[in-house]
Amino acid sequence: MTNLIRVGILGAGGFTGQELLRLFARHRQVDVVYATSSEYAGKSIAEAFPSLLNEKYKRLSFSGHPKSISDTPQMDAVFLATPDDVSLKWAPEFLKAGVKVIDISGAFRLKDPSAFLEFYGLEHTEPRALENAVYGLTEAHREKIKSASLVANPGCYPTAATLPLWVYRDLIDFTKPIIIDAKSGTSGAGGRKEKDGLGYSTVYENFRSYKSAKHQHAPEIAQEVNTLTGQNAAVRFTPHLLPMYRGILSSTYVFPKAGINNADFVKAARSVAYEPFLRYRENVDAVELKHVQHTNYCDFAHYFDEKSGVVLIVSAIDNLMKGAAGQAVQNLNLMFGFPENMGVM
Amino acid sequence: MTNLIRVGILGAGGFTGQELLRLFARHRQVDVVYATSSEYAGKSIAEAFPSLLNEKYKRLSFSGHPKSISDTPQMDAVFLATPDDVSLKWAPEFLKAGVKVIDISGAFRLKDPSAFLEFYGLEHTEPRALENAVYGLTEAHREKIKSASLVANPGCYPTAATLPLWVYRDLIDFTKPIIIDAKSGTSGAGGRKEKDGLGYSTVYENFRSYKSAKHQHAPEIAQEVNTLTGQNAAVRFTPHLLPMYRGILSSTYVFPKAGINNADFVKAARSVAYEPFLRYRENVDAVELKHVQHTNYCDFAHYFDEKSGVVLIVSAIDNLMKGAAGQAVQNLNLMFGFPENMGVM
Amino acid sequence: MTNLIRVGILGAGGFTGQELLRLFARHRQVDVVYATSSEYAGKSIAEAFPSLLNEKYKRLSFSGHPKSISDTPQMDAVFLATPDDVSLKWAPEFLKAGVKVIDISGAFRLKDPSAFLEFYGLEHTEPRALENAVYGLTEAHREKIKSASLVANPGCYPTAATLPLWVYRDLIDFTKPIIIDAKSGTSGAGGRKEKDGLGYSTVYENFRSYKSAKHQHAPEIAQEVNTLTGQNAAVRFTPHLLPMYRGILSSTYVFPKAGINNADFVKAARSVAYEPFLRYRENVDAVELKHVQHTNYCDFAHYFDEKSGVVLIVSAIDNLMKGAAGQAVQNLNLMFGFPENMGVM
Amino acid sequence: MTNLIRVGILGAGGFTGQELLRLFARHRQVDVVYATSSEYAGKSIAEAFPSLLNEKYKRLSFSGHPKSISDTPQMDAVFLATPDDVSLKWAPEFLKAGVKVIDISGAFRLKDPSAFLEFYGLEHTEPRALENAVYGLTEAHREKIKSASLVANPGCYPTAATLPLWVYRDLIDFTKPIIIDAKSGTSGAGGRKEKDGLGYSTVYENFRSYKSAKHQHAPEIAQEVNTLTGQNAAVRFTPHLLPMYRGILSSTYVFPKAGINNADFVKAARSVAYEPFLRYRENVDAVELKHVQHTNYCDFAHYFDEKSGVVLIVSAIDNLMKGAAGQAVQNLNLMFGFPENMGVM
Repeated sequence: MTNLIRVGILGAGGFTGQELLRLFARHRQVDVVYATSSEYAGKSIAEAFPSLLNEKYKRLSFSGHPKSISDTPQMDAVFLATPDDVSLKWAPEFLKAGVKVIDISGAFRLKDPSAFLEFYGLEHTEPRALENAVYGLTEAHREKIKSASLVANPGCYPTAATLPLWVYRDLIDFTKPIIIDAKSGTSGAGGRKEKDGLGYSTVYENFRSYKSAKHQHAPEIAQEVNTLTGQNAAVRFTPHLLPMYRGILSSTYVFPKAGINNADFVKAARSVAYEPFLRYRENVDAVELKHVQHTNYCDFAHYFDEKSGVVLIVSAIDNLMKGAAGQAVQNLNLMFGFPENMGVM
Repeated sequence: MTNLIRVGILGAGGFTGQELLRLFARHRQVDVVYATSSEYAGKSIAEAFPSLLNEKYKRLSFSGHPKSISDTPQMDAVFLATPDDVSLKWAPEFLKAGVKVIDISGAFRLKDPSAFLEFYGLEHTEPRALENAVYGLTEAHREKIKSASLVANPGCYPTAATLPLWVYRDLIDFTKPIIIDAKSGTSGAGGRKEKDGLGYSTVYENFRSYKSAKHQHAPEIAQEVNTLTGQNAAVRFTPHLLPMYRGILSSTYVFPKAGINNADFVKAARSVAYEPFLRYRENVDAVELKHVQHTNYCDFAHYFDEKSGVVLIVSAIDNLMKGAAGQAVQNLNLMFGFPENMGVM
Repeated sequence: MTNLIRVGILGAGGFTGQELLRLFARHRQVDVVYATSSEYAGKSIAEAFPSLLNEKYKRLSFSGHPKSISDTPQMDAVFLATPDDVSLKWAPEFLKAGVKVIDISGAFRLKDPSAFLEFYGLEHTEPRALENAVYGLTEAHREKIKSASLVANPGCYPTAATLPLWVYRDLIDFTKPIIIDAKSGTSGAGGRKEKDGLGYSTVYENFRSYKSAKHQHAPEIAQEVNTLTGQNAAVRFTPHLLPMYRGILSSTYVFPKAGINNADFVKAARSVAYEPFLRYRENVDAVELKHVQHTNYCDFAHYFDEKSGVVLIVSAIDNLMKGAAGQAVQNLNLMFGFPENMGVM
Repeated sequence: MTNLIRVGILGAGGFTGQELLRLFARHRQVDVVYATSSEYAGKSIAEAFPSLLNEKYKRLSFSGHPKSISDTPQMDAVFLATPDDVSLKWAPEFLKAGVKVIDISGAFRLKDPSAFLEFYGLEHTEPRALENAVYGLTEAHREKIKSASLVANPGCYPTAATLPLWVYRDLIDFTKPIIIDAKSGTSGAGGRKEKDGLGYSTVYENFRSYKSAKHQHAPEIAQEVNTLTGQNAAVRFTPHLLPMYRGILSSTYVFPKAGINNADFVKAARSVAYEPFLRYRENVDAVELKHVQHTNYCDFAHYFDEKSGVVLIVSAIDNLMKGAAGQAVQNLNLMFGFPENMGVM
């Protein structure tokens, strides 16, 4: 097994980190050699997460967070499942050391440093890394990802909302507003820690919107629409919190270009049948979270509403898979020349 | 207690019927003298629903469905919590017998018989009753309801979506689409019976839209907007099923008239402060289902999104209360001259 | 309304405090004149809890916690929905001022100060108040409660488990172990604050026991069995956390005395038919949380298992009602000569 | 891939059938050549269950139920995830045709035909197959399973309750009652179909026992205790329905033999450390459903309660994995000489 690549995960104790560990337990080309967690430092994987006990991890324990790059073992790639400021600091360090980086935080997603400051409250101190970072929406940027050394893995909401916008991009009138009414389970709306607003008694048997006025995923979606179409779309993005655990469903309302009809939308949807992780479902009501949970699929469909002139696009993903760890592994596979679906199907 | 009014409930074993029984247990002017349920016929209220055991119901048992009007006791008012076809047949019978009717089915909501046929699959055989029926959106039609003998109690989705549209009606550009993205708990999406699609294993940890292409509440909303504004708005209505029990939250996207700004919306919202059951919440994210569950309130707020030119209106109700039984009792109170909030606050 | 009694609630912002406010909104003999909450001090009731908005509370706002008794208004009775140490300090202060006290904490439940130290980690500094405190299991101690000035309102688990033990007390062999396998929703297992272990992602789709080795309700149950029967029963008490919000169901396994049979158990169960809040259900499987939620009932039943010689007793309550606020109001009614079910039915 | 064994699944559309399909998608020695489902006959696996789409199943579609053995392809082994009467009829047919059978129904679990009649309501018409059937509690009967041609895969409750009884079997006084208080998610308490009692509105925010007087798993547990210890234990078995989907937790109360202490229980627990799917957890409160969901582990622990003389044993499994499909694959691996954990770890 000398030809396995050596992979590390910073922040491996969080939701996405656990999901990466779960995926790599079965990935035939990857050896996880390093996993950090301030909470679980010193514990074996199985002690911390009994459901992750696996042959591959019998000898792996969580390390504390590294103080400097010299604390880390030799690696081919590292996943940063860390807060934005930690990723901002460490991504360049690893790049300098020749380690490919897949960053799951928001540190390298927004190309405009002033937007980063506005939405993340941080000065962007790494303009060169930011410039070279490739946005990891796999289906839309496959070729660039293959040769990237730093991938900014997309946010969960942007993945769910933007994938079908990419599919239908030639049919939509982007001079009119794009209205994204999105709903997420709790694992997508916050981290593993119990924060204000994610206690059982406030989530259970309840439903509400949150961060409606200002969510950091709104500019990320707008930027990607601009990348894909060259247009500055006005995005209205309203995230809601579902009383459940896993999955994001986005109901997106768009206006079609003049002369475009339902057949055009169907044709566009069918044109991506080759994509391993996109599934066109014909009926919007058949796009359900249960069909994508624990998978890397993005299910999507549209309803061309003649009466109102609005097209409803519904898409669903598992926020921890296609919305985080699954897409990250997809990107790793591309970066190292493995089959794209290895370990995620 | 000779001056209590005598009230009956047809279909008292369903969700709304139970809620009516719960409310009337505390209503000081109402004596429930008749409650039908094919399932529970012959059983006492407490046998069928242990949580409804109450002094007032110690001697009340469920009757079977009546064969003719002569099977029913003398009553001042009757609630029809029955299927559409049953209401269609029985409302005129009771009216003829001088009993005021509050119909909770869809039988008398749509003024256009062809729409009724299209969305309910039934010929409308009672044009006269239909013509005289008053649409029971209490806040919008209070005066008419006071003198009505037949009230068509609104659907739960239309109540949630239309109340804030009524509040903001002068500010919205109804020549543009009204996009209603609504989410309901299971008690609003179906009856008490376990139907396909409402089993635990298909609802739990799941989320999806349903009837997106054609839901009978879409024309009801469009009709009411027309009644309120005189305009034929194009309504895009997408209902979704929440993995929870109680409540409807509607995220409605509208376009403001030219020159209208946020201050205008705030002013309109504040202008209804006198309403006992409307609560303006200033922040859309503060409109939560848990604040309205088991109450007759409609909480609402708006977000005037300058960037996209769209105004987001969020509203929430308890579908069994303001969306059904609570509003029905509010209407009864108006019809009989009782304080409007008696028994519902 | 000069003859209403004046009531205060310390700790009115917690789960039980809110439930008391909800109940008093409808209680015809009670005027809430004082409600403290460090979190909501200065806010009106309706601002803090929109679902509690009510005529009665239009002019009531939360006060901060009092520094001394002179900060508090004149009152006839006060509810202490406060932590154990706060109740320990304040109960004697109010008693001295002539205010009757219903304490919902554990401060005055255990008669043995050494047990209090062991299970609550506090020295009991108020032996006189402790001695005079009446244990508020209403059905078992009605007469004493009528003349009490300090009532120690029982814990939620002890209420659920002990009520049927009281009913069947003459039939059970208390020289053998009493095995109590209890299950609670999250509102019974912790306070309103999000503590470790009550976050959504650790409770949802999960089930486990907690505090199995040492829970402060175990000695409370043992003490009450001793009070009722004069015997020192060995109690095995295992609480579990249900992935839901409201209710406690206790499956209690006991050994019958020699010669006792099922008919004896049925007779005992029927002998309490006069009790307004005990409901014998004949079949253990018919004891469901949904039948008692939002009510003050304790539903119970037994199964006399001839094969194993064990009798299974199942009982269910709403932990915030019969297990806390409801029983507290029942006790207040007794202390002031109101009908026992006033405001709780 | 000519050396893969050919496997079929009858009743592959149900919960257990789907789980088998999920497991075999990754099993390196198994080719699924046949899968029946009356509901999905003619559909591809991915059409019926989008989350099961996988390379291995690209060409597999559901067949209807076979009329005779000649309708079935050549197979090495077949799983019967079918109703009891269907298994009863088909197991002997496949055995005759030389196909090894793993029956997941209850048809071959109870060795006493009169008990089968009493608890399953069916005459046992296949005494010879019944006699030869090996009870598939893997850890307890490994050697017999290796050479079996018919394995009766244990029920989910019996697996959860009996595995720790096997571990501690020499320490327990089986002349005294064994009290099993078990709790299951809905996927263990019923099939995929929505039956009375498993609708969302009756399960959600509710908890109750069911079949307390007579559940078919009680005699199965008693029989296995007898097999393991030679004693006729009196088993009190009370199943409850959890408002969640996946997992069974059993709180079992036993009396230790005279002279036995906690150290003996700890030693016994540690003595099975070699078992790949048993995990001793030291603290009963650390046995949680979330640690075993989607895995084949049985987590267990005990609490030796000196005061009451009772030992509490808590055990947890995923009912669809160790309680059904996972254990079935474990048994298949043994029968065909594959590593026992292949495809289930």
